[in-house]
Amino acid sequence: MAHMTLAESVLSGDRLALARLLTHVEGDSPEARAALAELFSYSGRAHLVGITGAPGTGKSSLVNQLALHFRKQEKRVAIVAVDPSSPFTGGAVLGDRVRMRDLSGDAGVFIRSMASRGSLGGLAQTTAAMTLVFDAAGFEIVMIETVGAGQNEVNIARLAHTTVVVEAPGLGDDIQAIKAGILEIADVLAINKADRPGVENTEKALRSMLELAHPTRKKFLHHGRPMIADAAAEAADSRLWIPPICRTVATDGKGVEGLAAAIALHAAHLRSTGGWNLRERERLRSEVEALLREALVRRFHAELSGETFESVIQNIFERKLSPWEAVRTLVNDRQA
Amino acid sequence: MAHMTLAESVLSGDRLALARLLTHVEGDSPEARAALAELFSYSGRAHLVGITGAPGTGKSSLVNQLALHFRKQEKRVAIVAVDPSSPFTGGAVLGDRVRMRDLSGDAGVFIRSMASRGSLGGLAQTTAAMTLVFDAAGFEIVMIETVGAGQNEVNIARLAHTTVVVEAPGLGDDIQAIKAGILEIADVLAINKADRPGVENTEKALRSMLELAHPTRKKFLHHGRPMIADAAAEAADSRLWIPPICRTVATDGKGVEGLAAAIALHAAHLRSTGGWNLRERERLRSEVEALLREALVRRFHAELSGETFESVIQNIFERKLSPWEAVRTLVNDRQA
Repeated sequence: MAHMTLAESVLSGDRLALARLLTHVEGDSPEARAALAELFSYSGRAHLVGITGAPGTGKSSLVNQLALHFRKQEKRVAIVAVDPSSPFTGGAVLGDRVRMRDLSGDAGVFIRSMASRGSLGGLAQTTAAMTLVFDAAGFEIVMIETVGAGQNEVNIARLAHTTVVVEAPGLGDDIQAIKAGILEIADVLAINKADRPGVENTEKALRSMLELAHPTRKKFLHHGRPMIADAAAEAADSRLWIPPICRTVATDGKGVEGLAAAIALHAAHLRSTGGWNLRERERLRSEVEALLREALVRRFHAELSGETFESVIQNIFERKLSPWEAVRTLVNDRQA
Repeated sequence: MAHMTLAESVLSGDRLALARLLTHVEGDSPEARAALAELFSYSGRAHLVGITGAPGTGKSSLVNQLALHFRKQEKRVAIVAVDPSSPFTGGAVLGDRVRMRDLSGDAGVFIRSMASRGSLGGLAQTTAAMTLVFDAAGFEIVMIETVGAGQNEVNIARLAHTTVVVEAPGLGDDIQAIKAGILEIADVLAINKADRPGVENTEKALRSMLELAHPTRKKFLHHGRPMIADAAAEAADSRLWIPPICRTVATDGKGVEGLAAAIALHAAHLRSTGGWNLRERERLRSEVEALLREALVRRFHAELSGETFESVIQNIFERKLSPWEAVRTLVNDRQA
């Protein structure tokens, strides 16, 4: 036992080691990188599910309900909650999690919140690394929860096999506009708080946006459980996936089973059409590109003296040199 | 005239050339880079004001009202609206702009919307480039409007000298959490829709969050116009800036004058404390870093064969190699 590496402890199912490794990952320590490299060969088995939605859609509750549902199916579930709040109020989200009594004390569930601080690249990379840890540690479903309001989600959704976009009735026009942007990344749509007035309008709006995105597929755009099976059967035929629209009420669990079924169906669709490997490869490619970018910049700065770089910045500040000329010179000089 | 470069036409005040250049910039064409390098030496005079806020705060209307106000002061105003909606519904925001009759037809105002597509780095860079164009073209105030919900704003706020965070009463807990994250980047706080119920609570919440951020400065945290002057006088003494809280009602222009005064005061504060040059230098540094990153990656891929890279990705996909080992090898090999 004493000679086990951190990665080995994680693989053996040690929850304390898992928590410790996640902390290392968040701090991007050398220990983290060593463990990640060791764990990598054990990864690639989990179903990665991105869940994104605007503030106020109740997506955290929905994620909790999904976790409960997957647990009933004996699946081990991890949740990475990417939380854009600052350390000041980090407690708000944590409080919400703590209230989730049904999940606490269950060894088959692991929930980790992380704040979206530092560079976005950093956040996407940290999320990817955490996902890898959970995947290697044998969690069959890893849910990545983000607050959906634009570009962040697109970057983080690239991590997932299946992206669920959560909407809710009556969130106003401004949010409607945002919705359109993240609709393009949706594999499954959930209208949460579906017991509220306006749910028909929300669904109608989503459906017409989907029609714009998939003009030839109008007929598949239904909601509810039976139509998912329908749409799936036809979509599998045509190898085309039409995002199903599922109504849910996370507060009492209504519709969660149907949503979970749609998520599972999407995984099956990806596996049967080769889309799974395609997304997996794209995900790994973008991870490599991010690491590469970082390594190249680090090497560049290691080879260039700090004073030289500062004097370049000073010249730019004084408008003697433009940033474009500066970079051309810096990179060419070092290339020639 | 026929021999004028695009940059020269822009400098001469040609609005058509300006619009054309902005389109080039959005497409990141070679013409854009050439023009930007040419315009760069004319930049550095504008006051860059970032305006960010969650959906539903009415920040677009507030930006329009600020523009009207600055126009009354004979200042030329440009607005870069970073719009996270997709091309599908881009019309929504555009429609809002078009309704702004008071500004249309005024040659002293230029409004440009851009969608937040592509990589975030790309978006921040494009916004920076557009800002530079307006700055060089002689617009004295450039407002950069973003939807505030996390990391995007932090990156885009780095572009601005002054960042205004817009809040509104009654947007719910989820948005409260987000608020805390962007509060850290606020130089000025606006509570818009201040005629709505709940404004007292919103201000109380903001004030207590500010107290957490600036524990020794409780006494300066007031709202309204006179207290701004108060806080400013004391803050200038101590060379510390406390974000003032301004109540506004964008629909009828109430409080806009006070907000504009707070923005101008912040610029004066920055100039008197050396903060202006500090922010300017940091902004240019992060621009150079972004261009550098891009150039290094481009050079890397130009020197490495596509097949070699694909075979590395394939090995990673098959879990024969971890991304970390791969990058170490790729970068070291090429360094040695």
